[in-house]
Amino acid sequence: MRGGAFALALAGLAVLTVSALAQDAAVTPAPVSPQIASALDQLRDAALGDNNGYSIVEDLVTQIGPRRAGSPEEARARDWAQAMLRAEGFSNVHVEPFTLQSWEPVVQTASVIAPGQQPLVIAALGGSPSTPAGGLEAEVVRFLNLDALAAAPDAAVRGKIVFIDEPMARTEDGSGYGAAVRKRARCAPMAQHKGALACLIRSVGTNTDRFAHQGGNARQPDGASLPAAALAPPDADILARLLAHGAGVRVRLNITSVMQEAAPSGNVIAEIRGREKPNEIVLIAAHLDSWTLGQGAIDDGAGVAIITAAAKLINNLPRHPRRTIRILLAGSEEPGGLGGKAYDLAHHGDTHILAGESDLGADLVWRMRTRFGAGAGPYASAMLSALAPLAIISGDNALDEGGTDIAPTTEAGAPTIALNQDASHYFDVHHTANDTMAQIDRTHMRQNIAAWAIVLYLAAETDWDFRTGGMAPAAPPRQR
Amino acid sequence: MRGGAFALALAGLAVLTVSALAQDAAVTPAPVSPQIASALDQLRDAALGDNNGYSIVEDLVTQIGPRRAGSPEEARARDWAQAMLRAEGFSNVHVEPFTLQSWEPVVQTASVIAPGQQPLVIAALGGSPSTPAGGLEAEVVRFLNLDALAAAPDAAVRGKIVFIDEPMARTEDGSGYGAAVRKRARCAPMAQHKGALACLIRSVGTNTDRFAHQGGNARQPDGASLPAAALAPPDADILARLLAHGAGVRVRLNITSVMQEAAPSGNVIAEIRGREKPNEIVLIAAHLDSWTLGQGAIDDGAGVAIITAAAKLINNLPRHPRRTIRILLAGSEEPGGLGGKAYDLAHHGDTHILAGESDLGADLVWRMRTRFGAGAGPYASAMLSALAPLAIISGDNALDEGGTDIAPTTEAGAPTIALNQDASHYFDVHHTANDTMAQIDRTHMRQNIAAWAIVLYLAAETDWDFRTGGMAPAAPPRQR
Repeated sequence: MRGGAFALALAGLAVLTVSALAQDAAVTPAPVSPQIASALDQLRDAALGDNNGYSIVEDLVTQIGPRRAGSPEEARARDWAQAMLRAEGFSNVHVEPFTLQSWEPVVQTASVIAPGQQPLVIAALGGSPSTPAGGLEAEVVRFLNLDALAAAPDAAVRGKIVFIDEPMARTEDGSGYGAAVRKRARCAPMAQHKGALACLIRSVGTNTDRFAHQGGNARQPDGASLPAAALAPPDADILARLLAHGAGVRVRLNITSVMQEAAPSGNVIAEIRGREKPNEIVLIAAHLDSWTLGQGAIDDGAGVAIITAAAKLINNLPRHPRRTIRILLAGSEEPGGLGGKAYDLAHHGDTHILAGESDLGADLVWRMRTRFGAGAGPYASAMLSALAPLAIISGDNALDEGGTDIAPTTEAGAPTIALNQDASHYFDVHHTANDTMAQIDRTHMRQNIAAWAIVLYLAAETDWDFRTGGMAPAAPPRQR
Repeated sequence: MRGGAFALALAGLAVLTVSALAQDAAVTPAPVSPQIASALDQLRDAALGDNNGYSIVEDLVTQIGPRRAGSPEEARARDWAQAMLRAEGFSNVHVEPFTLQSWEPVVQTASVIAPGQQPLVIAALGGSPSTPAGGLEAEVVRFLNLDALAAAPDAAVRGKIVFIDEPMARTEDGSGYGAAVRKRARCAPMAQHKGALACLIRSVGTNTDRFAHQGGNARQPDGASLPAAALAPPDADILARLLAHGAGVRVRLNITSVMQEAAPSGNVIAEIRGREKPNEIVLIAAHLDSWTLGQGAIDDGAGVAIITAAAKLINNLPRHPRRTIRILLAGSEEPGGLGGKAYDLAHHGDTHILAGESDLGADLVWRMRTRFGAGAGPYASAMLSALAPLAIISGDNALDEGGTDIAPTTEAGAPTIALNQDASHYFDVHHTANDTMAQIDRTHMRQNIAAWAIVLYLAAETDWDFRTGGMAPAAPPRQR
């Protein structure tokens, strides 16, 4: 998942909660037929022994590896995805192409050059322009956060490298990310406005290991064009300690990046066609693209695998559910949710019964949240009853977008559901070189597959209308 | 610590154990005067509240960072060490210079180029020559271990990149290292002999995180000169999985390294001069140099800090102990224990009462091992009594060398002691970019300082002769 949307979703939550009903576990669940109940048990059991999901992400990571938005590797991932989805027996498998302005980091190095000399581990941030050839060298000035930078006189910043040394809190619900990610987009425009030569941030992550976290859009906001990079936490510590000894700490920063207009990307679509109401769509999404340093296992190979494996289990049942289940493997999520926007443009007229997304790794789902109509509580309650054996609890009905890839669709009014994964360790790895298969627990992944199989099947096999009673107003359009 | 010596020490252990007496905790401890007992309590209490050790390694890591043998940074580390040791109040602080043939990795990159294209995280191995400009490309052939490579026909290897995919066991006593490290030195000569173009090994480490482990001597053994590198474990996994899909896996390997004849290095010496027998030396060592990727915190900034802080606590007592405590901060340990050899050359005639070394990180000491005379059990027993409150147990009297920096001195007959640290996590980090302050637990480091303060003080304040009863024969000279 990318950063900005998540942060803004959390910010939006506070507003929405006021007008939204909390899901009440005491609401009587909508009745479920014995046939459906039996199918749910069957799906849950099959998912908890599933090896298909793990194999899917393992194959994606192995055959493709990192797959930057707009790159040849992302194109290979689309080919891989189509072949895989056809092999899994889905129908209507196709690519919906679009283009984007892409950004590629080619060189991203830094070192302390005074006092002494030592290398720093960094990751260039999305949209960062190149430094002058050979890099730039300047004194570093440290701020604890964006507010401190904003308050600083220009003279304290001009001609220097700004360093924002703000840490991130580790939280189960990932809310530490919302607090910490602002500096990633805002440092460059704010520092450039004050005359700085470059911007460094402490990585937006919870690790103490030596990995730097990439992220950000393909273009810096507000017309900024300033070299910007994230430091691995131990390297931010080095700068902080050197500066504690006194000023005069100088860094060389060397970034080469390439911008490409109209780089090719695309969404991959696959379906289980509904046997009775094929035009009623239950949408489930994940994204194919990744950042460049890691292998894209937890972000978001895991999501690709979880939703595909869950849908595959449904496809294995003796008959298709009534409604269509549509898989969206979005392209170009990381640089700004472009696949989700392209999907909405192409499918704005479709009838989306429900939309969900898996894009927070592969750790255990612990909570269900929704944005349903005021009278749809019994449907949520029935879903929770079916999820309870997986140790999933009730959240509220104040969910905002549910994920970047489905955000334009849910903003347009589609009911949405989130199966919140434990994010305690996700931000140790997110957007780093360490995003590999070693981060995926097969048992945890199976629980995710079980949960999504249950949700997708209930939504597609029933005639439930998740808008019943009227939806809370959509969140206001967001800055992306 | 470097690799080969440790492996060979473990190999030697099996031989020595037969002829050596196990330390018996039931042996009556040698009597200790009330004054000494009181000083030991004082040292232990002070160490368990010590902040000095942590500050020393933090300062070394911050002010110098990585300090490759023979580099300008190692020279700066000698300056730093002398200033620090003088500030701590030690006497006879000086450098004993020597030179070495040094090896510096400048470029170390690799990628899969077929099927598909994806980067691999590697670390060039010590002594690796450069690849041709721009790198070499070849098919990869995988072996489970050196024996499998040895058994392969030349035709299966010729013109290819050999990949030895042997993992390492996680163990408390570090013995997994001895089993796993052989391939690091032997892969290049064996592969070259069979006509391979390069050698890749699965890193000699226990991590699943994406760090590659450096290591090896500055020259490959047996006159080999073959590009050689270690893969991070997740990258070894990628190759293994690709090869499981079929042959035709090709890798580009790009290494640029620089060899330098007569590069400057040196040992830093400091002493607490004995008040009665200044020519009787209790030697305690650690090493100043490090590999290039990390910051040299646990290997061996921690050892530098532990032994210095322990000696400093003794220096804080109202009077010096009877014998001299000598600190050896060795240079150029990593590329072949050169500092230890230079020390032995310069000090072969000195009277070494006891020698010890701290070079396995900063985790808790759990066991004491010795190589004392057959009649010196009561002295070991008295040491164990004083160490027991720190949760340290008795090992055997079959210790081989005790550490690379003191090996030539102990081979020449000096009694030796080892305070074995818990190595369970050490080889997750050893020789990787992740060797930073974040790996050091302040409380664990304090226990190390307490243990060494006790051992050093007992050896320096008593008149114990650790050769009593005659030493077991020294281990045969080792291949290094």
